[in-house]
Amino acid sequence: MKIAVIGTGMVGRSISAKLVQVGHEVVMGTRDVQKTLAQNGTDVFGNVPLAQWQGGNNKVTLKSITEAAKFAELLFVCTHGSVAKNALDLADFGDLKSKTVIDVSNGLVFGAEGEQPSLSPVNTTSIGEKLQKAFPEAHIVKTLNNIQHTVMVNPSLIEGQHNVFMSGNNKEAKSIAQKILNSFGWESEQVIDLGNITYSRAMEMNVLLWWRMYEILGTGEFNFQLMKK
Amino acid sequence: MKIAVIGTGMVGRSISAKLVQVGHEVVMGTRDVQKTLAQNGTDVFGNVPLAQWQGGNNKVTLKSITEAAKFAELLFVCTHGSVAKNALDLADFGDLKSKTVIDVSNGLVFGAEGEQPSLSPVNTTSIGEKLQKAFPEAHIVKTLNNIQHTVMVNPSLIEGQHNVFMSGNNKEAKSIAQKILNSFGWESEQVIDLGNITYSRAMEMNVLLWWRMYEILGTGEFNFQLMKK
Repeated sequence: MKIAVIGTGMVGRSISAKLVQVGHEVVMGTRDVQKTLAQNGTDVFGNVPLAQWQGGNNKVTLKSITEAAKFAELLFVCTHGSVAKNALDLADFGDLKSKTVIDVSNGLVFGAEGEQPSLSPVNTTSIGEKLQKAFPEAHIVKTLNNIQHTVMVNPSLIEGQHNVFMSGNNKEAKSIAQKILNSFGWESEQVIDLGNITYSRAMEMNVLLWWRMYEILGTGEFNFQLMKK
Repeated sequence: MKIAVIGTGMVGRSISAKLVQVGHEVVMGTRDVQKTLAQNGTDVFGNVPLAQWQGGNNKVTLKSITEAAKFAELLFVCTHGSVAKNALDLADFGDLKSKTVIDVSNGLVFGAEGEQPSLSPVNTTSIGEKLQKAFPEAHIVKTLNNIQHTVMVNPSLIEGQHNVFMSGNNKEAKSIAQKILNSFGWESEQVIDLGNITYSRAMEMNVLLWWRMYEILGTGEFNFQLMKK
């Protein structure tokens, strides 16, 4: 498929590289291509400049969000949740019509050091729902937001049949997202479909627990597995 | 130990019965003993009247919350989260001093049928923190809130080394809570201490995901297990 990955951070990079590896045509979308390519030095997360990353990932091309959305049959939203809608606003509205938009973002708001983050939005809405409302003709699928980028694209890093959640209003779009997850290495039995896009709330609110476990373990290479009788 | 269980619903009943079974002296605390004993018929959750339940659990005595708190060395809060503080207000302030108070409550607010519940409070505070703030000399420990009552007191109902979270400011109180969890059948390796009481937020916000899984599976007899490399 022709896939646009919106966001050039570590999540966007891991997903882009994996999508190329499993045979897709991938364009990364960014607000300002020249500015993104002019970045020098590592960022606060220790990521190398995108231009350097592209050297080892030369099948991923970089375009404006507008062009990336026009090119794509499917989009991944890999920005921070607080700017997800704003980033998609740069796509022409018609270019999102009937397309699957996989939203992996979170709305973590960091406060003072030592304080846990809060979420925005939270509880009575979610980023997933806000995107669906803003782009009613797109098919938003929320998934992978509770999982570190390295595990997103390589679930076998973690032992066991741990789970990934999914929510969205459109069955076909969820089926497409599931196939993408399968291609990342997630078995269908590991994917839990929670229902419509309102269940993004539960998925996004779960991220505070994820974040605390990340702090405690000192790594994001973990996940949770549903256990039954 | 002398333990008070505040709340006479299914959670309070399961915990009281288990505490008796493992050798504690248990008093259930309720707002109005006469009213509680006069209940007829099953409640909306299918629970038999408390007087009938007591017939098979005659080592659990029923007292006012004030008397139960006076009697107890340790308290369990098994009310709905929305009335947890209100229930503890009925205890004499001095009767909570330096006592471990294990809060298993959740603040689920149910809306229209088919809509998922929301939480109150949420995000920047939690029931656990509100209790700690209201009763600064008590040692609030939040635990077990993401787990169905039948699993709380019998974790081996579920396969695997699934986890129970805990948060609280007082180390000794958490150690006492951990011993209680051990006596319920939780191995120490299954207990994850998230840190101070502010991490009740993450635990309480996780309950929306629990609730949705409960709806999907049609049973609360499940839990999640942390999986690592």
